[in-house]
Amino acid sequence: MSRIEHDMLGEISVPADAYYGAHTARALTNFPITRETLADRPHLVTALAAVKQAAAAANAEVGALDPAKARAIAAACAEIRGGALHDHFVVDLIQGGAGTSTNMNANEVIANRALELLGHRRGEYGVLHPLDHVNLGQSTNDVYPTAVKLALDRHLAELLTALAGLRDAFGAKAAEFGDVLKMGRTQLQDAVPMTLGQEFGAFAATLAEDEQRLAEARLLLHELNLGGTAIGTGLNARPGYRERAVAHLRALTGIPTLVSAPDLIEATQDVGVFVQLSGVLKRVAVKLSKICNDLRLLSSGPRAGFGEITLPARQAGSSIMPGKVNPVIPEAVNQIAFEIIGHDVTVTLAAEGGQLQLNAFEPVIARALTAGLDHLTAGIGVLTRHCVAGITAHREHLADLVAASTGLVTALSPVLGYETASAIALEAHHSGRPALDVVRERALLTEEQLRELTTPEALTGRRVA
Amino acid sequence: MSRIEHDMLGEISVPADAYYGAHTARALTNFPITRETLADRPHLVTALAAVKQAAAAANAEVGALDPAKARAIAAACAEIRGGALHDHFVVDLIQGGAGTSTNMNANEVIANRALELLGHRRGEYGVLHPLDHVNLGQSTNDVYPTAVKLALDRHLAELLTALAGLRDAFGAKAAEFGDVLKMGRTQLQDAVPMTLGQEFGAFAATLAEDEQRLAEARLLLHELNLGGTAIGTGLNARPGYRERAVAHLRALTGIPTLVSAPDLIEATQDVGVFVQLSGVLKRVAVKLSKICNDLRLLSSGPRAGFGEITLPARQAGSSIMPGKVNPVIPEAVNQIAFEIIGHDVTVTLAAEGGQLQLNAFEPVIARALTAGLDHLTAGIGVLTRHCVAGITAHREHLADLVAASTGLVTALSPVLGYETASAIALEAHHSGRPALDVVRERALLTEEQLRELTTPEALTGRRVA
Amino acid sequence: MSRIEHDMLGEISVPADAYYGAHTARALTNFPITRETLADRPHLVTALAAVKQAAAAANAEVGALDPAKARAIAAACAEIRGGALHDHFVVDLIQGGAGTSTNMNANEVIANRALELLGHRRGEYGVLHPLDHVNLGQSTNDVYPTAVKLALDRHLAELLTALAGLRDAFGAKAAEFGDVLKMGRTQLQDAVPMTLGQEFGAFAATLAEDEQRLAEARLLLHELNLGGTAIGTGLNARPGYRERAVAHLRALTGIPTLVSAPDLIEATQDVGVFVQLSGVLKRVAVKLSKICNDLRLLSSGPRAGFGEITLPARQAGSSIMPGKVNPVIPEAVNQIAFEIIGHDVTVTLAAEGGQLQLNAFEPVIARALTAGLDHLTAGIGVLTRHCVAGITAHREHLADLVAASTGLVTALSPVLGYETASAIALEAHHSGRPALDVVRERALLTEEQLRELTTPEALTGRRVA
Amino acid sequence: MSRIEHDMLGEISVPADAYYGAHTARALTNFPITRETLADRPHLVTALAAVKQAAAAANAEVGALDPAKARAIAAACAEIRGGALHDHFVVDLIQGGAGTSTNMNANEVIANRALELLGHRRGEYGVLHPLDHVNLGQSTNDVYPTAVKLALDRHLAELLTALAGLRDAFGAKAAEFGDVLKMGRTQLQDAVPMTLGQEFGAFAATLAEDEQRLAEARLLLHELNLGGTAIGTGLNARPGYRERAVAHLRALTGIPTLVSAPDLIEATQDVGVFVQLSGVLKRVAVKLSKICNDLRLLSSGPRAGFGEITLPARQAGSSIMPGKVNPVIPEAVNQIAFEIIGHDVTVTLAAEGGQLQLNAFEPVIARALTAGLDHLTAGIGVLTRHCVAGITAHREHLADLVAASTGLVTALSPVLGYETASAIALEAHHSGRPALDVVRERALLTEEQLRELTTPEALTGRRVA
Repeated sequence: MSRIEHDMLGEISVPADAYYGAHTARALTNFPITRETLADRPHLVTALAAVKQAAAAANAEVGALDPAKARAIAAACAEIRGGALHDHFVVDLIQGGAGTSTNMNANEVIANRALELLGHRRGEYGVLHPLDHVNLGQSTNDVYPTAVKLALDRHLAELLTALAGLRDAFGAKAAEFGDVLKMGRTQLQDAVPMTLGQEFGAFAATLAEDEQRLAEARLLLHELNLGGTAIGTGLNARPGYRERAVAHLRALTGIPTLVSAPDLIEATQDVGVFVQLSGVLKRVAVKLSKICNDLRLLSSGPRAGFGEITLPARQAGSSIMPGKVNPVIPEAVNQIAFEIIGHDVTVTLAAEGGQLQLNAFEPVIARALTAGLDHLTAGIGVLTRHCVAGITAHREHLADLVAASTGLVTALSPVLGYETASAIALEAHHSGRPALDVVRERALLTEEQLRELTTPEALTGRRVA
Repeated sequence: MSRIEHDMLGEISVPADAYYGAHTARALTNFPITRETLADRPHLVTALAAVKQAAAAANAEVGALDPAKARAIAAACAEIRGGALHDHFVVDLIQGGAGTSTNMNANEVIANRALELLGHRRGEYGVLHPLDHVNLGQSTNDVYPTAVKLALDRHLAELLTALAGLRDAFGAKAAEFGDVLKMGRTQLQDAVPMTLGQEFGAFAATLAEDEQRLAEARLLLHELNLGGTAIGTGLNARPGYRERAVAHLRALTGIPTLVSAPDLIEATQDVGVFVQLSGVLKRVAVKLSKICNDLRLLSSGPRAGFGEITLPARQAGSSIMPGKVNPVIPEAVNQIAFEIIGHDVTVTLAAEGGQLQLNAFEPVIARALTAGLDHLTAGIGVLTRHCVAGITAHREHLADLVAASTGLVTALSPVLGYETASAIALEAHHSGRPALDVVRERALLTEEQLRELTTPEALTGRRVA
Repeated sequence: MSRIEHDMLGEISVPADAYYGAHTARALTNFPITRETLADRPHLVTALAAVKQAAAAANAEVGALDPAKARAIAAACAEIRGGALHDHFVVDLIQGGAGTSTNMNANEVIANRALELLGHRRGEYGVLHPLDHVNLGQSTNDVYPTAVKLALDRHLAELLTALAGLRDAFGAKAAEFGDVLKMGRTQLQDAVPMTLGQEFGAFAATLAEDEQRLAEARLLLHELNLGGTAIGTGLNARPGYRERAVAHLRALTGIPTLVSAPDLIEATQDVGVFVQLSGVLKRVAVKLSKICNDLRLLSSGPRAGFGEITLPARQAGSSIMPGKVNPVIPEAVNQIAFEIIGHDVTVTLAAEGGQLQLNAFEPVIARALTAGLDHLTAGIGVLTRHCVAGITAHREHLADLVAASTGLVTALSPVLGYETASAIALEAHHSGRPALDVVRERALLTEEQLRELTTPEALTGRRVA
Repeated sequence: MSRIEHDMLGEISVPADAYYGAHTARALTNFPITRETLADRPHLVTALAAVKQAAAAANAEVGALDPAKARAIAAACAEIRGGALHDHFVVDLIQGGAGTSTNMNANEVIANRALELLGHRRGEYGVLHPLDHVNLGQSTNDVYPTAVKLALDRHLAELLTALAGLRDAFGAKAAEFGDVLKMGRTQLQDAVPMTLGQEFGAFAATLAEDEQRLAEARLLLHELNLGGTAIGTGLNARPGYRERAVAHLRALTGIPTLVSAPDLIEATQDVGVFVQLSGVLKRVAVKLSKICNDLRLLSSGPRAGFGEITLPARQAGSSIMPGKVNPVIPEAVNQIAFEIIGHDVTVTLAAEGGQLQLNAFEPVIARALTAGLDHLTAGIGVLTRHCVAGITAHREHLADLVAASTGLVTALSPVLGYETASAIALEAHHSGRPALDVVRERALLTEEQLRELTTPEALTGRRVA
């Protein structure tokens, strides 16, 4: 069961129950690449519908579009924004044409649904046309990046929520472990004491910074080129349309900071905002990977490792080694981080490949960023719930390591001088004795001095912080 | 409807009709990351089944496994290799644990299907156990990389077929355009003449080299660590098992070059073979991207561009610009290339992250490589069928450009000297006249000399090639 | 001629005229890697001196350092900040130890120069010691990143000046070419008209945005961990020292926005600020590379290319092709961009490799960032002076292309409808005739309508902008 | 003191004592980018001289060049190959023009030195001309990549020597530690036993594989495009010249495998060989980084870490922590690895940027590869001499960890079954007792069985290997 549609290349058959039309059908033949479709990015589908709805309303207001048609288009878009018809957004996320097939898919689904709402059958484009009406005053080149930005905004909202949750979980552990003294390490070598609470507090602090950077990058997404049409000159957009379309978008999305870019020609060809976002996302990935590396190090063992903390057991760790438990959650997050770092290179290449008035490679940028955001948000959620929240500390072992360490010598160095302190550290290391014993033996400091210099407060710097 | 299974962490509910069991169920909770599952990589699922079948046969031969159990396991594996039960391979492709959940998923599906074949119900592991029998003498750490290598081998076979098809298509165009004279360009500036056939022939030649490099990298995949078990020491594998298992794998896969790695400890922790393959894949991507860039340049216009060739029209190019046709197929391939180049960085980071006796990040390596291979194979197929095969040349325009070019001066330079030739080129350029006219005017060469120095044969170097 | 110094490993010979000492001498043996030394980064050397000077002043104020010693140290530092003694900063930029050798090199040079100023000989560390006095209350782990940030601030100031110059040059061209009508292109295909001034104006606008992003990233550099000492706990730093040291740094550097990080433990281990800066630098590189690609495309030819603009001839383009002129300046900038994009991956890996309380790989981060900034600043300067400032336009050719183009059909599409407009475009394309002639022939629009719809103002969107 | 030369752009002043000429002088103005010059790559300078010498000899043989001139050119080249005149190779390594300035620099230095040898003054190009004679039958586009390949061959020879040395050092340690039992680790968790000799043996084995991959990539460099001239058509090269030039190169370089590429047009534009080499180099970097990470892990502590081995102390580790010793040599090698991984991205971008008949970005490829090779060779040398050769093992500590480990349970699992073994491991872990004690307590195995299953031979798999 199919119907016949036509485009500039001639006739083409479309499934009778499809809301999409000829242009989408051709794209299905042309881009059987990843099997991931627009429908796999619901935020992008709803963003496309919001853009089309805003455009229809603006066009009606400036007299370019018959109000009845505008209402029908708006109603169809509202349905899609509500979750309907997503399975008719069928084109592959990787596609040539700078997103043309995505825009066409949206135009066609909306036109056919609007036709139904007007009491017509799908395909009766003489009444309401995907391009002449749904796409009126628009071009893929302003619609697609606008929709991608709106979708990314939603993805970022989710990521920020997840990050805040992880930060809180680390913060809770920082409080819980606030009095647990341990050895700090630099370059994997015993350094000077700190508390385990300080260690987890640093994780929380570093994520808080990332939330700020993400929020800044998110704001850059709110500058839109909608109304610039094909190359930013606004050809075929009526006077007043652009301002009204952006105003409607603000209302529909609830994002009050949406604005028009000051130079629409620049804004149409430039994908710098995606490069910026990808760079910040990479920064988040790098930090999370470092944190996961630390969690895996601190929980290494149980006997032949650092053994400072225990991560919650989530599954049997080995098909051959009974009783083995592995840090599988941090390992998963490491891998998501590696993926995102790779995506950043993909985004970079795609951005560098832009030519003249357009970047034809926005689809792979959109796919990489949205996939990365989705995976990262998921991974952070798992890390929070299934790992960080359940971490426990081996307090005795940590205390033993501090007592045995030569790192305490550093605290005596301002009094003893660097060279004397070095000699004590070496002797302690080679003899296997606690460094403080060596100091006592040599009677270099009084017990009073020793006590004062090595209180937990003095050692962990609470006088400084 | 569910059944209760248990593992070291206690009881867990599994859907009654699931062939997988407790370990898989836990993994579903732990890794809700990408929504891409093992079932999305059929070559990996069948490779896992082949490894398990080979292991069962080998274990039976060395007396470690009851022959009836071995036969049931083998029968279950054969079904999976035939395409059955793939939808029970449900764990996410990105997972912590170095592939443990993948191996567990395979062990459980095979055990439960084997139990059925033996007349038992799923979950009756007292009769046949996923770990004690299906995983006997094995570890994730030898099974998983072995299966990944076998899967990659199949992916590579498909890519090589696609590449050969593209090479042939370019070769056919090279023959078709063998007598079409045109200007060669270096640094986008008019250089010296060549034929369009030579240009397309170079595309074919460069792909042929890539096929060789891929074949070399493929061969490296055939070195396996199966039999090394947990860290390569072969602990718990019976004497003779390893040799027999690999022999069975040769038979089951039809790959006669499968061998055991000489140092199994090295082979268990090292992922160099994946880095190598990823590097070669990146090379292919780089070259294809360059070729697609060239196709887009040569077909730029139609009027305000190079306009040397026309790519087949595949879809309307613009939602706003009527009649515009875009090079959408090469653009899609460019994007696949960018994706693969990004994946190479992901693979690199994952490889660098390996620690001591294992690399925990093999899953993201496997996912990146198999996705890249799939997308690249698909993209090359589309490029061959929907683009290269239908390319046509603008012969007159090409001839006009050669006649008008100052580039012919180079052919006269050996006779005139570089400095005189430069002066002629500059005069021709500034006056807008053909360079040969300037030479004639200055009577620097006879007509005879000019004719001889500028025959197509002399210009395009057939005496050299 | 040498003197003997000693450290914890024993005695070592140092050239008699060297201001550096034992620790530096060991580093020379350990890191003969790149042959690039601290002296090749004058901004880093002066920043180190500023940090040491601020620390000495602060230590004196809190009573930790004898005022005479503090004055001598400050005087030595002031000399170095004035350009003296840089050739004694000899350690390789790539070094193990998280910058320890860099800090030691600075401590030793400053101590020995201060000794001289106090009337002593080099090496008389009993009087004034590199570690006990110059490094007092400090650690490599706070000194090194602080100095790197201050050095980067200086590098960024230079880059921003260069970028502003390039932006101005593009702006001047935008004004010069404000009335030059041309075809805009999307996906290398003729799209719709614009002015060459708009094209160059977009280059200026996109660089202005980059200047903003760089300024934001620069501000992040002003958050310092000085005073955190080894791991951020501030061990061995006197109360009050940190605040005073940062205040002195503000005064010495003239950067009023320098502040202490709120969490010094986080700030000591985190290198997110460098990842952020590297990401923004990569963004600048990507955009510049895109611009250079455009310049090369627009100047391609002179006959078999776009031929829209001419770049100034800077050198003979070919050793074999007389008269050939190549776009060598943009090509150099492309390469600098590729270098910086690669550096971003280096920075990413180094950042990801941080462990626990420190990132040991800051030296390669510092080297990559400072090299990239230097090269980019140099390249932008050359691009401004030797390329952009001298660009000329081929006005007639540009006008001819607009007249011949089918792209004008887009402007008629709102009146004709997309499908009719498509048919006209195809006919014009296949017949080789101007599209407007086809419209006239079919009498689809009046001359009045045609004129109105195709005025330069209507076409290039000045009513919109 | 200067002389005046001229080129197509007019007159230009050159220092009187310079062997280079006008084209080089212009390049100095155009490319003040990195301050690294050709002279910083002696292998490239000598390779350029070898190419020019071979070309002169071949040109003389085919009658294109006067024998006296050919002899003078050859003599000048021989001097340069012997190390003379390198400081006249002054152009920046990053340059536009696909290496034109490099080729021009070589042509000019050789011509001027040849002029002197013929009894003329520098600049008397009427007698012997840099382009008409030194560059006869050549183009930058065949000379430059040929020279780069020959230079890389030399760099690779040095790297392979260094790698073999490191492999030997690891091999010696493998023998030394052949009987030292220790716990193997997967995912940083205690796994099953192995020997420290096996661990170091795996490092040696993995480097041996890299040597093979490098040797394969090196062979690909021996396919040359010399004789293809500007775009591979061989325009202006005399019949017979190409074969003779390559033959002379074989003789001059002592590389018998040098051959002409079968498709010179492809060979002129393709830089796949550099991408391949860069990929393999990245693989080496990844593996070395992993090895250095392992060395740093195994030597972490001395008390609060793994503490399994001690790396030789090379310098004081800290400016604030007396007695601290850091793994500075592995840290330096890590950073070199990160640099090379970044370079690989640079090479990739440069390769992808090639257009039509040439890749204009070969200079940045050459710079990245040669820098990486230099740094890697230096780093490996340091790692061998100053780190690996002096590593010592903490035998008692290692034995204690094996005895205490629950990992021994794996060896009992084939007899006990996975589930029973898991229960024992968990009990041992939670009670802190040796796992074997739990087995004994439960009387699950006889002492005889326990002994047999846990001999070092059984545990470390010597029966398998």
